[in-house]
Amino acid sequence: MARWQPGTRERLQATALQLFASHGYDQTTVAEIAAAADVTERTFFRHFADKPEVLFAGQDDFLGIFTGPIESAPADTAPFDLVRLALDASGAFFPDERRPWSRTRQGIIDAHPALGERELGKLATLKVRLGEVLRDRGVPEPAATMAAETAVTVFHLSFAQWIAEGEDRSFSAIAHERLDALTNLVHPAR
Amino acid sequence: MARWQPGTRERLQATALQLFASHGYDQTTVAEIAAAADVTERTFFRHFADKPEVLFAGQDDFLGIFTGPIESAPADTAPFDLVRLALDASGAFFPDERRPWSRTRQGIIDAHPALGERELGKLATLKVRLGEVLRDRGVPEPAATMAAETAVTVFHLSFAQWIAEGEDRSFSAIAHERLDALTNLVHPAR
Repeated sequence: MARWQPGTRERLQATALQLFASHGYDQTTVAEIAAAADVTERTFFRHFADKPEVLFAGQDDFLGIFTGPIESAPADTAPFDLVRLALDASGAFFPDERRPWSRTRQGIIDAHPALGERELGKLATLKVRLGEVLRDRGVPEPAATMAAETAVTVFHLSFAQWIAEGEDRSFSAIAHERLDALTNLVHPAR
Repeated sequence: MARWQPGTRERLQATALQLFASHGYDQTTVAEIAAAADVTERTFFRHFADKPEVLFAGQDDFLGIFTGPIESAPADTAPFDLVRLALDASGAFFPDERRPWSRTRQGIIDAHPALGERELGKLATLKVRLGEVLRDRGVPEPAATMAAETAVTVFHLSFAQWIAEGEDRSFSAIAHERLDALTNLVHPAR
């Protein structure tokens, strides 16, 4: 499992983000990213298929972080508890020290529709994979798809709040607040 | 409020859909649609701003159908009941006789990424508007946004099932099944 620690790949990602933020995404070339990270262009392309990929690499790790806890949970775990487990695990992908990086990255993505589409595609893939692992565990339809959609919605809203200006709570705390809001929405405590 | 009944606008929509389905969306011109519906191009453009709009007109009606029941519900209505009211009302927008039209329309949209994006934009607008009317009623955050997202997710999944091959249940029956799945997901009946 990839971790957020020093290394060529991570250095390339950090360098690319700095260049995108200071010079503009469109204005920054792979050659400039490689030079600034003190590696060759060939090395860049060993790690990333193309320039946008430097912002999206780690997709497989990310999917695995979501689906792993669902696949390994005890057989009698309720579907909503599976959703909780997946969201708790996803918090590990967004430690506080990553927040500035995520904020800068999102600003670049939001400013470029093509990157925004890749991001939406990523969330769509996550929904599909979650639905699959839930059905594999015997969760019937339409419950499996509702659970997958709910998990990704909570994830997406939590992430948006986690990178919001002035927010300093952990990803998990924010996700739990949203899960609680959903629980209370569906069955209000009177 | 526009209704699904004969009239120039509806005739243009039905004619356009037939032409899109038989000749292809890209191959069909506004001139051909107008001629087949026995009106002038100028009349077409009095009803629709451009060719894609013939598939998306009615957006304001649709938003109003969702938000109207929320705005007019008694002050003490619980947020999840507001979601139910909106979904029940949206069923009126999708009577059984509209299903063949909706199926053909979705086939065209799914085959054209630019139309798919307009469709996603429509759902995004719906989420934003729902969040607004819920906050206007005093529903706090993050409950208002969770409720809006949940309503649109249930709507979207219900619509997809309503137009699925072989499906003959009403939109409302399908939406209720999904709301029940969500309720049972969040608070399982043991």
